[in-house]
Amino acid sequence: MPHIDLPEGVPGIRSAMQYRPETAVHLNGLAEQLLRAENTLPPGDRELIAAYVSSRNKTVFCEYSHSAFAAVQLEGGIDLVEQVKRDPESAPIDPKLRALLRIAGKVAVDGKSVTSSDIEAARDEGASDLEIHDTVLIAAAFCMYNRYVDGLDTWQPTDPQLYQERAYRLIEHGYVGSAPAPS
Amino acid sequence: MPHIDLPEGVPGIRSAMQYRPETAVHLNGLAEQLLRAENTLPPGDRELIAAYVSSRNKTVFCEYSHSAFAAVQLEGGIDLVEQVKRDPESAPIDPKLRALLRIAGKVAVDGKSVTSSDIEAARDEGASDLEIHDTVLIAAAFCMYNRYVDGLDTWQPTDPQLYQERAYRLIEHGYVGSAPAPS
Repeated sequence: MPHIDLPEGVPGIRSAMQYRPETAVHLNGLAEQLLRAENTLPPGDRELIAAYVSSRNKTVFCEYSHSAFAAVQLEGGIDLVEQVKRDPESAPIDPKLRALLRIAGKVAVDGKSVTSSDIEAARDEGASDLEIHDTVLIAAAFCMYNRYVDGLDTWQPTDPQLYQERAYRLIEHGYVGSAPAPS
Repeated sequence: MPHIDLPEGVPGIRSAMQYRPETAVHLNGLAEQLLRAENTLPPGDRELIAAYVSSRNKTVFCEYSHSAFAAVQLEGGIDLVEQVKRDPESAPIDPKLRALLRIAGKVAVDGKSVTSSDIEAARDEGASDLEIHDTVLIAAAFCMYNRYVDGLDTWQPTDPQLYQERAYRLIEHGYVGSAPAPS
């Protein structure tokens, strides 16, 4: 049972967002900009970074959600997503994305652990400053979303089907389009 | 030197926000709502939670900034802020705030470490669901801001005077009022 009186039957961050629309509007706006706005990093790659960080933080709702969101936007589908979460070093992905995932994994632990060599390695594979910036902020933001979902002990279902349905809705309406309106 | 080409001479998160106004607008909107919007928790108490989490995460820019912002809004000033960061258990603060700081400290490590007893203890001291919600989200959000500032290796000056001047500006203009406009 959640730590506070959240709407029943609504999973994860969505229950906390319905409870507090005044903060939800900013959380959704940030997710929309980071994960779906125009960017040289494809949305599927950005969702994969979100799924990877959430799996490192062991936050089921965010991991399952963003794995599903990544899977519907990547050619390799859910198999590729699972491979990346298990071991990004051996997964069949672009070397640039692999270098960015390394940075994201470090940010998830402590921003101070990112080294100049990590940044150089990403640049050598063609990453731009903006792509590095957005990777750092996506990873940092998911350290927030994950703690928010876990810290309130929200309901985090484990049936992948629920997340799959949500993924199609997300693609159609985006983060802001399906958000509760602030009161 | 920062990992990417951030504006020179601009400290901490402000340099990253000038670099990327498209995300800054959401980060500032969230800070304004969490730390300054109308709330039964006074702004000084909320800034203290932000300073405490940032000190746990050892992010100098955020710790010094929010310590200064808390100090100008709390009767005990900077001495009280320093006492709280050193040891919230012995600092002369309201028992409700102490219970909320305990929750914030746990969220900073892992949201899953917050227990029902932590929540009950806060409720016993008079904390409402909304105050518990906002405490969890403030702590989670500073895990993001801290990682963002550290992960880009932004310039984090250690002269307290710089942060003091900024505090008066913050009180007057708020987080959104002094933010860069999205391009």
